[in-house]
Amino acid sequence: MYGPEQDTPRFSLDFSPLVDRLIDLALEEDLGAGDVTTLALVPPEQKGSARIRAKQPLTVAGLAVAARVFHRLEPRLTFFPQVADGDQVEAGADLAVLKGPVAAILTGERTALNFLMRLSGIATFTRRMVSAVAGFPVAVVDTRKTMPGWRVLDKYAVRLGGGRNHRFGLYDGVLIKNNHLQAVGSITAAVRRARAQVHHLLKIEVEVATLAELEEALAAGADLILLDNMDDAALAEAVRLTAGRALLEASGSMTLERLPRVAAAGVNLISMGALTHSAPAVDIHLRLL
Amino acid sequence: MYGPEQDTPRFSLDFSPLVDRLIDLALEEDLGAGDVTTLALVPPEQKGSARIRAKQPLTVAGLAVAARVFHRLEPRLTFFPQVADGDQVEAGADLAVLKGPVAAILTGERTALNFLMRLSGIATFTRRMVSAVAGFPVAVVDTRKTMPGWRVLDKYAVRLGGGRNHRFGLYDGVLIKNNHLQAVGSITAAVRRARAQVHHLLKIEVEVATLAELEEALAAGADLILLDNMDDAALAEAVRLTAGRALLEASGSMTLERLPRVAAAGVNLISMGALTHSAPAVDIHLRLL
Amino acid sequence: MYGPEQDTPRFSLDFSPLVDRLIDLALEEDLGAGDVTTLALVPPEQKGSARIRAKQPLTVAGLAVAARVFHRLEPRLTFFPQVADGDQVEAGADLAVLKGPVAAILTGERTALNFLMRLSGIATFTRRMVSAVAGFPVAVVDTRKTMPGWRVLDKYAVRLGGGRNHRFGLYDGVLIKNNHLQAVGSITAAVRRARAQVHHLLKIEVEVATLAELEEALAAGADLILLDNMDDAALAEAVRLTAGRALLEASGSMTLERLPRVAAAGVNLISMGALTHSAPAVDIHLRLL
Amino acid sequence: MYGPEQDTPRFSLDFSPLVDRLIDLALEEDLGAGDVTTLALVPPEQKGSARIRAKQPLTVAGLAVAARVFHRLEPRLTFFPQVADGDQVEAGADLAVLKGPVAAILTGERTALNFLMRLSGIATFTRRMVSAVAGFPVAVVDTRKTMPGWRVLDKYAVRLGGGRNHRFGLYDGVLIKNNHLQAVGSITAAVRRARAQVHHLLKIEVEVATLAELEEALAAGADLILLDNMDDAALAEAVRLTAGRALLEASGSMTLERLPRVAAAGVNLISMGALTHSAPAVDIHLRLL
Amino acid sequence: MYGPEQDTPRFSLDFSPLVDRLIDLALEEDLGAGDVTTLALVPPEQKGSARIRAKQPLTVAGLAVAARVFHRLEPRLTFFPQVADGDQVEAGADLAVLKGPVAAILTGERTALNFLMRLSGIATFTRRMVSAVAGFPVAVVDTRKTMPGWRVLDKYAVRLGGGRNHRFGLYDGVLIKNNHLQAVGSITAAVRRARAQVHHLLKIEVEVATLAELEEALAAGADLILLDNMDDAALAEAVRLTAGRALLEASGSMTLERLPRVAAAGVNLISMGALTHSAPAVDIHLRLL
Amino acid sequence: MYGPEQDTPRFSLDFSPLVDRLIDLALEEDLGAGDVTTLALVPPEQKGSARIRAKQPLTVAGLAVAARVFHRLEPRLTFFPQVADGDQVEAGADLAVLKGPVAAILTGERTALNFLMRLSGIATFTRRMVSAVAGFPVAVVDTRKTMPGWRVLDKYAVRLGGGRNHRFGLYDGVLIKNNHLQAVGSITAAVRRARAQVHHLLKIEVEVATLAELEEALAAGADLILLDNMDDAALAEAVRLTAGRALLEASGSMTLERLPRVAAAGVNLISMGALTHSAPAVDIHLRLL
Repeated sequence: MYGPEQDTPRFSLDFSPLVDRLIDLALEEDLGAGDVTTLALVPPEQKGSARIRAKQPLTVAGLAVAARVFHRLEPRLTFFPQVADGDQVEAGADLAVLKGPVAAILTGERTALNFLMRLSGIATFTRRMVSAVAGFPVAVVDTRKTMPGWRVLDKYAVRLGGGRNHRFGLYDGVLIKNNHLQAVGSITAAVRRARAQVHHLLKIEVEVATLAELEEALAAGADLILLDNMDDAALAEAVRLTAGRALLEASGSMTLERLPRVAAAGVNLISMGALTHSAPAVDIHLRLL
Repeated sequence: MYGPEQDTPRFSLDFSPLVDRLIDLALEEDLGAGDVTTLALVPPEQKGSARIRAKQPLTVAGLAVAARVFHRLEPRLTFFPQVADGDQVEAGADLAVLKGPVAAILTGERTALNFLMRLSGIATFTRRMVSAVAGFPVAVVDTRKTMPGWRVLDKYAVRLGGGRNHRFGLYDGVLIKNNHLQAVGSITAAVRRARAQVHHLLKIEVEVATLAELEEALAAGADLILLDNMDDAALAEAVRLTAGRALLEASGSMTLERLPRVAAAGVNLISMGALTHSAPAVDIHLRLL
Repeated sequence: MYGPEQDTPRFSLDFSPLVDRLIDLALEEDLGAGDVTTLALVPPEQKGSARIRAKQPLTVAGLAVAARVFHRLEPRLTFFPQVADGDQVEAGADLAVLKGPVAAILTGERTALNFLMRLSGIATFTRRMVSAVAGFPVAVVDTRKTMPGWRVLDKYAVRLGGGRNHRFGLYDGVLIKNNHLQAVGSITAAVRRARAQVHHLLKIEVEVATLAELEEALAAGADLILLDNMDDAALAEAVRLTAGRALLEASGSMTLERLPRVAAAGVNLISMGALTHSAPAVDIHLRLL
Repeated sequence: MYGPEQDTPRFSLDFSPLVDRLIDLALEEDLGAGDVTTLALVPPEQKGSARIRAKQPLTVAGLAVAARVFHRLEPRLTFFPQVADGDQVEAGADLAVLKGPVAAILTGERTALNFLMRLSGIATFTRRMVSAVAGFPVAVVDTRKTMPGWRVLDKYAVRLGGGRNHRFGLYDGVLIKNNHLQAVGSITAAVRRARAQVHHLLKIEVEVATLAELEEALAAGADLILLDNMDDAALAEAVRLTAGRALLEASGSMTLERLPRVAAAGVNLISMGALTHSAPAVDIHLRLL
Repeated sequence: MYGPEQDTPRFSLDFSPLVDRLIDLALEEDLGAGDVTTLALVPPEQKGSARIRAKQPLTVAGLAVAARVFHRLEPRLTFFPQVADGDQVEAGADLAVLKGPVAAILTGERTALNFLMRLSGIATFTRRMVSAVAGFPVAVVDTRKTMPGWRVLDKYAVRLGGGRNHRFGLYDGVLIKNNHLQAVGSITAAVRRARAQVHHLLKIEVEVATLAELEEALAAGADLILLDNMDDAALAEAVRLTAGRALLEASGSMTLERLPRVAAAGVNLISMGALTHSAPAVDIHLRLL
Repeated sequence: MYGPEQDTPRFSLDFSPLVDRLIDLALEEDLGAGDVTTLALVPPEQKGSARIRAKQPLTVAGLAVAARVFHRLEPRLTFFPQVADGDQVEAGADLAVLKGPVAAILTGERTALNFLMRLSGIATFTRRMVSAVAGFPVAVVDTRKTMPGWRVLDKYAVRLGGGRNHRFGLYDGVLIKNNHLQAVGSITAAVRRARAQVHHLLKIEVEVATLAELEEALAAGADLILLDNMDDAALAEAVRLTAGRALLEASGSMTLERLPRVAAAGVNLISMGALTHSAPAVDIHLRLL
């Protein structure tokens, strides 16, 4: 289901008040009372241009955010993307060209690059993971282990890297985890209660750690099941037991090396917190021309 | 100057409207219209307790932020730190205990852990770097390559890891970089212009790439000089040339292995963007008791 | 599925930044530069008490919101609920008692009552609708035709009246409407494309106006189908055709009188925009004691 | 005073930060992390047009607000009003035409319609009430029983329906109500105290329930008197007694049928909370062309 | 009317979201990323106390605002007022005592004092002006020439100094000024149009520069008339002409010396922009004990 | 250092979220629910123009802020500056011309003028002070005694008047004051502790009241020393003692008359709180043409 029949993914970033607030926060924390260096050195009327360039191979993510950073600072500055979000580029590729007041280019440089470096870092890292399971009918998905304040952006970058998103927050999907089960008492009771309460467009996923729990969750009618920290053999057995009655998500202790074995076990989804909590930034520079 | 004579560092996190805004943003993006799972499963009157535990050795950072996340959600929930920010703990150590409404514990769990995992990740990574230069009269400092929206927190975590902070933003220090020099024309003119404009409590730092530029910057009276991407030999020569006339900061291509050689070259500061843009998250869990 | 086996519904209102912002907006628009009448007439130190009383039979909704309105104005004022949200009370019932500074009681009165009157109005109106289909295995659900700014509150009041919620927004469920179909071209293509894009915890609902469209939607694998403006006979035929392959939601031209006939047709859900866009306010007063 | 000599009313909606905040709140609550249906189905580059059409006779209110909703989402979308706020139109009339990205039209549809349906509902309902007293020298006025967060908009819609506004909040007029009188002790003392405290551009109104209180309020020099819940005979007697010494406002238990009798009693103003707390929404659709 | 029969003025400062926003703005602009001096020098656990002392005779204004500044920074800090807003104190008087964390006292000192020094400056300056007309049945009133962002506070300080407030903004009173008259064409038309449009609790004031305009304004039924920049003789003649038909406000070129002559002319109100745009700050210090 | 070799100062006002928030606050407090006078009198379609004119000689400050006030209200209104910030103009000079909807001109007039009158007041007052020390190698600098909420603007106006800025807040410079010394115990300890904690681009200033303290501060290595409330003789002695080892700032009891004597004593900086806390507003009008 999550493979060859997928449509071309859609990458446009919707209007997002949360992203606007993050951009404002970022500019306020960096500018404070003003960019004293640029204000002292660069006359406001000086015009120029600059390019943003990849210093390593990477999957591009965040051009629209970078453009908004500069636009928020100085509406007269123009941002010309040279590639598109989702493109894979080589070291040395120009990502964008800017034209306008030099002072605004210099003042916005760091904030814009910080967004680009992290988001492209996530996309690039995700793409490596996704490539490791190419050919398997499995999706690599993110988690809610995103940077606080960055949820929409982090998950957008995952999509650009070829990954798929898990739920966006606590509101758009039911995921019954071990802590919930401890509070409720049993999987059966928890699934029944959730089904009776949540609206009819949300599916229900249950986290299980053993095959016995898996059986209980299937019997309770869970739509998806998160297999927590199982080894490859247990995963394969879980797939066999489930026999298509629910989607299966493998989670925990995933590494690039292990991914093909997990995919081969036949699960539908592999979730990795590292996509968003530990992807290293990629190197991107800005140079005045 | 930046070594044995240092005072015990101060770790308290000042009142910060920017941090409050980030916490609100984080809760809003995760909660949206509500935590449908917990709302369905856990009665609002159910009380309980939980502990937050390190799953690996780490330097603790962010307990006050985690406490505020939970307090914002539910003022009746109490957060008992078991260690202090800056402590180095082993795997299995309890970082905090929570008591109060179970629903609030479950709803706030992910956001609070996301803050803790990243900030402790930065502190832990920084401590490794700082340890590599132990004994040298040098400071490992951060940069402005922080996560947009997280500047105050990221730099706080660096201090907890034994690093020191560079300027916080564009407003509290002059750093004349190569893009500025391109806009102005010469180091001498740039330093003179900055000196004539900025207020009298700010020092002036200049980025140079060659020893010739270093000479010009020293002659112009720069207070600090950033040596950009020089190899170890060039750094040592720069130290010799400068002869104490300015503080020297080495930057670019720093790795754990290289740090002792850079320190041995005699620079005063080594700045590393990776402290904040690429420190991997550390593993921290929350369990209901 | 949506009837006798339901758990006791949970009514607690989660932490909600959106609700806090609406309360602030409401107080700001009413207070402006201050309550000139109360400021002139009531000394700040005068203490007193008041009760909030139902002037007609109603289902209570919004006590927590009213309490927050008063608390925002004056933290020293205490709000004692006399009933609980969801209770059905007679005319003359006391809903709450307030004790504290008289000035704050008078200043907050109108804003607090405005919240209570509308939310209890929705709950009361919903209860009448739900009662009309008592005994049928059907749920009366709301829509997104809520008051802008009030989404979380309006849907909370619907639950208190015994109704159930449809999706909360554009983010927590796929609903393919006729305008979407016009943009895409066919139901089959639309469902396939949605399935390939959205995350795995969201179900897919399709709006159809004819039985032919219903067949296409079922064949495409829709999880739910919205039967738009069909008469009772068509609804019954749709139920027969569907034979349990998807949940069916009837929508359009619902009235109190018609509801039992629609329920009898066998659909699973009946959605009514009027629950939130046209429920009349109920009468609630506040009197100083 | 409030009749034939009135100027053509002015309908333009001033710059209002409160309205902007309500629009943002409305979009945030509906969009959350994004419109998953439209994002999955409609390519960002697809252009189209749509019309907004009345499905019943109504008085138009809120076109400027609807336009801002779409503009906030997507500045490249153009909104062409086909009628003006305040116009009375028949079922089937086109209210506006939109041209631009189809995705933005579909994403903004519900929020824009929710504003239009409620505001036009208020204007339409108000016009019915105002028509019932046509020919009498009386004004039908609103109250502060508006939807929290909507004060400026609700009162704007009342004006569009031919009604007039009462004070906008607690800050732009003195209205001494029975709760105030209970706190102060006497009408005479309350009016004297208010006159001595409030600024010289504000008039003073007193709520009375009996003719004796009316006499006291007149003697105290009240500028307006609110006659609370009096029957038609009492209202007429109040008019006779007052003999033009103050403006008289009748309030409480107003219905369409009773309005002409109240007007005939000779009061200057009739206030109706129902104009804003219980006006049913009118039916308005949006269709892609 | 505006003299001996006045009640004791009421000084309490209502809940005000605008004041809260100003306090937050003030703290954010001063703290930025933190108080580097205090953070370096004062351990967070150090407790102490301080007093705020008047360095010159003054009328106190702003204690509640100062208390909120400190409370916003550090809820554990306690603020003990030693006098009350509106009190007149001598040089050397203690205004307040603070107890709690020393760091918070030092960090909040400047912001709190800046509020106190300006607001007490306005109250002190106002009291001098009011004293100059003691015994005359006239009120000294403020204008809208307040510091942007400070409207509520500035006008509160005027009241504390014995002055009275004019309208608070553009929304709570009609004042037809010469620019309006130029746009409309005549005083008669302007008053008639205003009367027909604005709600019935607002009075209408007209600005006139000549006695002929005064006659026209009186004939048009203005409730108040602002006599703009008239000399003492013209003011007296205006009072004679008006003969009590409207309240008269003298404005323009007021000085302490001239005030008694203007009061003697018999006007009801004297407005002075200088109360809020040019009152010098008074000297107030904070000392650790 | 602070004299002839200074560059032409740079006056452009950077992007500032804090200034935007202050402008919004100012418009909200003045407009509230709307400008009732203008709304009643001026049709929205009426176009016109106006000029802003100086009524006294002054140094211009704040044109960009005034322009933003009008633009925020009505984007179709055009603001044509006739002079530039920093210009010195005579009474009668036109500062700006506005063209566009008359209603917006009238509604924004007071807020825009309030900004211009205060900022130009500061610039004008500062210029008088600066002129008094013309020819001396000394800078007149501001303090943190600015209007809360106005820090960036107040300090911008000081620069326009020829003054120089001290630090902008608590974050961009270390200033150890007497209250800090009381908390720490000694100057030597305080300087050492500050040097060990704050980042390497910030200088350290110490406030001293006696020559003995001055000696201690110099020995401790302070970069600047604030001489608090010393008389002219003590200042001269301090200059002699210091012999260029640190910059010296004189503060306290500065008057126009005394300034040349203080400058003659040889200090480097003279700081005056009065520049921003007590500069009288200058007179500026707006007239419709």
